[in-house]
Amino acid sequence: MLKLGFPAGSLQKATIELFGKAGFHILDSERSYLPRIDDEQIKPIMLRAQEMSRYVADGVLDAGVTGYDWIMENESDVVEVAELAYSKATSGPARWVLAVPNESKVTKPQELQAGVIATELVNVTKKYFSDKKVDVKVEFSWGVTEVKARLVDGIVELTETGSSLRANNLRIIDTVITSTPRLIANKRAWQDEFKRAKIENIAILLIAAIDARSRVGLKMNVKKSDLEAVLKILPAEKSPTISSLADSDYVAVEVIVEDKVERVLVPALKRGGASGIITYPLNKVIH
Amino acid sequence: MLKLGFPAGSLQKATIELFGKAGFHILDSERSYLPRIDDEQIKPIMLRAQEMSRYVADGVLDAGVTGYDWIMENESDVVEVAELAYSKATSGPARWVLAVPNESKVTKPQELQAGVIATELVNVTKKYFSDKKVDVKVEFSWGVTEVKARLVDGIVELTETGSSLRANNLRIIDTVITSTPRLIANKRAWQDEFKRAKIENIAILLIAAIDARSRVGLKMNVKKSDLEAVLKILPAEKSPTISSLADSDYVAVEVIVEDKVERVLVPALKRGGASGIITYPLNKVIH
Amino acid sequence: MLKLGFPAGSLQKATIELFGKAGFHILDSERSYLPRIDDEQIKPIMLRAQEMSRYVADGVLDAGVTGYDWIMENESDVVEVAELAYSKATSGPARWVLAVPNESKVTKPQELQAGVIATELVNVTKKYFSDKKVDVKVEFSWGVTEVKARLVDGIVELTETGSSLRANNLRIIDTVITSTPRLIANKRAWQDEFKRAKIENIAILLIAAIDARSRVGLKMNVKKSDLEAVLKILPAEKSPTISSLADSDYVAVEVIVEDKVERVLVPALKRGGASGIITYPLNKVIH
Amino acid sequence: MLKLGFPAGSLQKATIELFGKAGFHILDSERSYLPRIDDEQIKPIMLRAQEMSRYVADGVLDAGVTGYDWIMENESDVVEVAELAYSKATSGPARWVLAVPNESKVTKPQELQAGVIATELVNVTKKYFSDKKVDVKVEFSWGVTEVKARLVDGIVELTETGSSLRANNLRIIDTVITSTPRLIANKRAWQDEFKRAKIENIAILLIAAIDARSRVGLKMNVKKSDLEAVLKILPAEKSPTISSLADSDYVAVEVIVEDKVERVLVPALKRGGASGIITYPLNKVIH
Amino acid sequence: MLKLGFPAGSLQKATIELFGKAGFHILDSERSYLPRIDDEQIKPIMLRAQEMSRYVADGVLDAGVTGYDWIMENESDVVEVAELAYSKATSGPARWVLAVPNESKVTKPQELQAGVIATELVNVTKKYFSDKKVDVKVEFSWGVTEVKARLVDGIVELTETGSSLRANNLRIIDTVITSTPRLIANKRAWQDEFKRAKIENIAILLIAAIDARSRVGLKMNVKKSDLEAVLKILPAEKSPTISSLADSDYVAVEVIVEDKVERVLVPALKRGGASGIITYPLNKVIH
Amino acid sequence: MLKLGFPAGSLQKATIELFGKAGFHILDSERSYLPRIDDEQIKPIMLRAQEMSRYVADGVLDAGVTGYDWIMENESDVVEVAELAYSKATSGPARWVLAVPNESKVTKPQELQAGVIATELVNVTKKYFSDKKVDVKVEFSWGVTEVKARLVDGIVELTETGSSLRANNLRIIDTVITSTPRLIANKRAWQDEFKRAKIENIAILLIAAIDARSRVGLKMNVKKSDLEAVLKILPAEKSPTISSLADSDYVAVEVIVEDKVERVLVPALKRGGASGIITYPLNKVIH
Repeated sequence: MLKLGFPAGSLQKATIELFGKAGFHILDSERSYLPRIDDEQIKPIMLRAQEMSRYVADGVLDAGVTGYDWIMENESDVVEVAELAYSKATSGPARWVLAVPNESKVTKPQELQAGVIATELVNVTKKYFSDKKVDVKVEFSWGVTEVKARLVDGIVELTETGSSLRANNLRIIDTVITSTPRLIANKRAWQDEFKRAKIENIAILLIAAIDARSRVGLKMNVKKSDLEAVLKILPAEKSPTISSLADSDYVAVEVIVEDKVERVLVPALKRGGASGIITYPLNKVIH
Repeated sequence: MLKLGFPAGSLQKATIELFGKAGFHILDSERSYLPRIDDEQIKPIMLRAQEMSRYVADGVLDAGVTGYDWIMENESDVVEVAELAYSKATSGPARWVLAVPNESKVTKPQELQAGVIATELVNVTKKYFSDKKVDVKVEFSWGVTEVKARLVDGIVELTETGSSLRANNLRIIDTVITSTPRLIANKRAWQDEFKRAKIENIAILLIAAIDARSRVGLKMNVKKSDLEAVLKILPAEKSPTISSLADSDYVAVEVIVEDKVERVLVPALKRGGASGIITYPLNKVIH
Repeated sequence: MLKLGFPAGSLQKATIELFGKAGFHILDSERSYLPRIDDEQIKPIMLRAQEMSRYVADGVLDAGVTGYDWIMENESDVVEVAELAYSKATSGPARWVLAVPNESKVTKPQELQAGVIATELVNVTKKYFSDKKVDVKVEFSWGVTEVKARLVDGIVELTETGSSLRANNLRIIDTVITSTPRLIANKRAWQDEFKRAKIENIAILLIAAIDARSRVGLKMNVKKSDLEAVLKILPAEKSPTISSLADSDYVAVEVIVEDKVERVLVPALKRGGASGIITYPLNKVIH
Repeated sequence: MLKLGFPAGSLQKATIELFGKAGFHILDSERSYLPRIDDEQIKPIMLRAQEMSRYVADGVLDAGVTGYDWIMENESDVVEVAELAYSKATSGPARWVLAVPNESKVTKPQELQAGVIATELVNVTKKYFSDKKVDVKVEFSWGVTEVKARLVDGIVELTETGSSLRANNLRIIDTVITSTPRLIANKRAWQDEFKRAKIENIAILLIAAIDARSRVGLKMNVKKSDLEAVLKILPAEKSPTISSLADSDYVAVEVIVEDKVERVLVPALKRGGASGIITYPLNKVIH
Repeated sequence: MLKLGFPAGSLQKATIELFGKAGFHILDSERSYLPRIDDEQIKPIMLRAQEMSRYVADGVLDAGVTGYDWIMENESDVVEVAELAYSKATSGPARWVLAVPNESKVTKPQELQAGVIATELVNVTKKYFSDKKVDVKVEFSWGVTEVKARLVDGIVELTETGSSLRANNLRIIDTVITSTPRLIANKRAWQDEFKRAKIENIAILLIAAIDARSRVGLKMNVKKSDLEAVLKILPAEKSPTISSLADSDYVAVEVIVEDKVERVLVPALKRGGASGIITYPLNKVIH
Repeated sequence: MLKLGFPAGSLQKATIELFGKAGFHILDSERSYLPRIDDEQIKPIMLRAQEMSRYVADGVLDAGVTGYDWIMENESDVVEVAELAYSKATSGPARWVLAVPNESKVTKPQELQAGVIATELVNVTKKYFSDKKVDVKVEFSWGVTEVKARLVDGIVELTETGSSLRANNLRIIDTVITSTPRLIANKRAWQDEFKRAKIENIAILLIAAIDARSRVGLKMNVKKSDLEAVLKILPAEKSPTISSLADSDYVAVEVIVEDKVERVLVPALKRGGASGIITYPLNKVIH
């Protein structure tokens, strides 16, 4: 049995969905911290992302999904098996930023010398300042951002787009750490043949599901005389599958493309003479 | 940059979803009227559908999505780029209807001569009655339909199936205007080469996504000896893609069909000898 | 017209969704017990699953969807057209179980002799005990399980995983009946040519949609020299579609697999030398 | 200990609130069917109102709150301690009515001879028809009123104002039974001195709380010379409390009045010369 | 019968509650625009506050509750019977303000000459600018404030505290009109003896209920020797009711005070030697 | 200005309501951490209860409301002005308890020697174990109780009734600390005359409001000949206010009683011959 930790809280829904796409269906995760899964070799356990890496490092869990930020905060000695970039449309990773009130005079970390910084990410923040040789007092704290930031000298907070900080009249002056979800493993579990194979298979399927999210299958029929021109429109690095048709003047062309490319390709292929163009969704893409 | 208006309110969710299907992912549309989009050439702005066409006509926006009803109401001079029929299962477009209380004696518009009509669509309603040479007073008003209709002589209201009017004991006596969503463009923006190409590409992708919603891909294997019979079952206007298989007694047949046709086709093909029949969902269909 | 009963209540959402997947879109089922459907030959009527089979047996309805448990409870004389196993990830059917408080000394049905049993499924429960020659009083009752079970000697309750019974400190001592949803038909309607054909087509499409839920399409390119090895990895009972490619060293291989198999297959095929492996979702699978 | 049944379901919230007003605070009734209460002599148990009287009659409970309709349906032999009229503003009790579709030709119960009646209140309905010497088949059924009424000949349903029946296009043709909540007691418990005193005290406090809901305290200062005139304005049956004041020209007058009377009294007293008129809310009124 | 209009929408809940406090209980106002009321002389009708005064002026309604802003906007010729200041703790009335984006250079109305103003309150806004001899184009519009304000030159919007305007980065440059709810009457209805008396009684009760909201009754026992000192602590304009007690060394003192005064008075009276001080809530206070 | 901290989170709603009862109305506390208050001498600031005492000790706030548990956890040097027991019906204060899984063999703290304890209340827990001379490792952690308790040796968690711990199959083995809300003040602010008077007045009003919650005013008329008997029924420690009436055979008796006493008193007084008994709610009671 593989004891596998799932993050309760903000990553919970996205992680459960991603495992579903990967082929592992988790039931009752809304109601129980010991949910069921349709794989008899896995025992799922839900824990806060903040504490996950501690339990993986200690061997209480064989593997788990958590953020890079909390692996660093806990200074946990684990194997990082895969980076998991869930989100479809947002470009970048989550960021912990150093912010001050709009009305503060501080514009860079060095000006916070001898100040008080409130954050949930105490160790990472301490390291950030000591690397910069700035001496500050770092206090554990979370929530109530708008007011808190005005009672201390600066805060280190998690943000995706910065918009809620702006709405609270706070100004970002630096990025302390960026973070994406990771699949991590305990070091002894990683030496165990069964567990390592299981974890690696999970990683392959998770990454295949993530890759499929931003890609589509594209099919079209092309006159043999137009084939060369149409192939030039396609991204160079992709080698399309070309198959013969009953009507020997035509071939069927099929290729997997990113959905950002699809937006450009579809109008271009239509103008380039392809017919019967369709795109269809994918469950998994293995490179 | 293309300044593109999205309708806030009743069309909002469906429009955001359709753009997502078309390949444009819009973020934060629930929280902000200046949402983000994963295309650097587009600046999305959310506005009420009722006012959209005024801002497109004035050039404040380059293009936008709104209903035909409000384009008419505002008498806006814009380019109508594409009609967008979102809804999967409902057959017809939205209708603005002229309705009276069940207990009213009125049965046709002419009997409302000298009456008072309450509506949100004042200009269209005025034109409707003046075309019929019926003299009425048209008052701006909305909401609280059931009661309102009893304080005036008739109302002109938006309805999809008529069921909420019936529930309020109102009787429809005529249709004033039918409406579907439209992609519209400012006349000067339409002369600009970059903007026009961008708007046309968006239109191609939106229509491809709409068409894909009511269609599926259908694949099956057919014995060569059954092929002619099976092809006769398929809709005449479709030319299927036929490809050879390793087993040379069989061919693979693939065709795109409407989902209403699929319901009839699948049992018929099964009886006609096709094997391994599957259907799969589509993201885009380009005619 | 086919008068077709849909179950209101706990099966409602899943049934409406399944019919949607099968190609029949039902509108307004949340608001009206006479919803609309996009098929002019069907008149949908929503009724409680508990009473459905009575109305089908009486000919008030031509056909309907309900649970096996309530067909048995009502002792209805109907044609059982198809078993419909909706749920994707849960393994088994719903169960009506005989349960007693944790603190009760009872461990098997025979020890309930002369006791009182509370249940919503009175007839089935009576038959269960009389088959076992145990004499009990069976009372109609539902809801408020935790307390009720302590006021009588035992209860017969519906459960999926048993977890809510455990949470109420109840102990399951036997299974009285297991149940899955069924498509049933009135006996006279089944003799009517039009109605029977219509019901059979609905059954084919529902089953095709159910089968598609737990399967995916899998495609890959395989070097001809690797083909035999790769084919051995695939499930034996499946005959894959193999088609030729423009590059004559390769063939395209396509196969439909269950998603539980996919989890094992994808990593194995990758290691076996297949390239461009993708999987895609299916709408319908016809065996 | 007094085992006291509280009705789960539609009466639940109003009953918990009424006991709160009476001075008994029940905790966790939303989450548990064995809630807590701040009186060590009472053990509260929540059960469906439909089954309450059976458990009181059997002595499983000493007393309980349920509707008169279900006491009759269950033909339970219990002591009816008090009628509890909860609702502040609605005038009458709940009614079970006999209803038919608007389009039915039936206008009185006698025309339903040989018909089928669907209802949750089977025994009361059977008795109603047999008293009228009308022979009908009464089927147990509930929910899905609008459709059900069209599949049988008539229904017997609970209604407060009749509006939801009208909305479902049903016509009421008779009232079968009217019902208010009752506090009932087990016959043996009623013989037990402690239990009877406890139940009677509860009844006094519940009725005092109900009476207080529709009454207010009214105070004013009146010049001695105006006193006679002012007293004539007050309802005749009330004897006001008149107390002397430091200023011997005036007296203070205090009286408890119904809030419907207050609406008329306050303007009249103001015109009649009373000063410093105030009204204040009451917790309990004992006649 | 008095046809009385209640405002649907933002004023709805507060108005229904206020009438309840005044002694008129309105039922079903959430579900129906023709709710019930426990007074047979009143027929309540719910309408949007925006249109209320038009229907009162036309005599479709005898009286109604709406805001001063919409009476002005509609230029309705009605009798203003009473100002109703609902809100307990907010100090001032609602305001329609002229606002511009923070980044705009405009600081006073005169700088908007030749600009475009978007507002729902078109007539009042036109009058405001013409009184100032500033020539602007006023467009009807509502909703989507943040974006709209950036597409035109200024907006006139309703605000209570200004905080949502600030959150949208808008700057208030002037107040166009302030508004409180009003009870208004039709001019002919006001001449009708029965209707006028009824409307006046309603007004007395509404104002008595409003006044009671911000006041409490205060009672205490005072030693006769302390009485003069204690009376000096009480607000001068109030004449307390002083009554004799069985213990002739003491008197009971009772007075009605505003709750803002109560905060100061209670600690002072305690220090001044009063004993048994209590305060209690009031339903109505008539001056 | 008095900078006064309000607890955001679980105490928030109850604290805002209590201040409202005390006469201080706080607006927008749902939306803003800098809410408004109707007292110009107070500046309210919302902060998490966990951090409140640190900011009061540092003088960032003059006073605040927080739990005794977090004052101890932060070891803050503050003035404890008043204990505030909010809850009406629950008897005891909140408790932090030491709990272990049901299946654990541990039955007392001493058996946890060398174990790991997870808790949010790290310092209090460390002190608890060191006082008992038990050596444990205390880890910061919160949430996901059910699972967590099985990954470590014991947890220290907040509970009110223990029911959610029981539902998670945990067993309480000791109470670590009990806690009620407190009004605390900064030591320097307490020396400031204005601030101290303000804080003391707030304390008087809060306690008067708390005391009023569990008490009612009781009035009745008593025949002079019954007076002695009736007075004996009343609680001995209360001295009732007795006032003369116009009818000299009777006196009016008024007394403040706890609502638990009221339940017993009202039936007894009725039997004792008192007439016109009413009870009414109170806003404040000053002892």
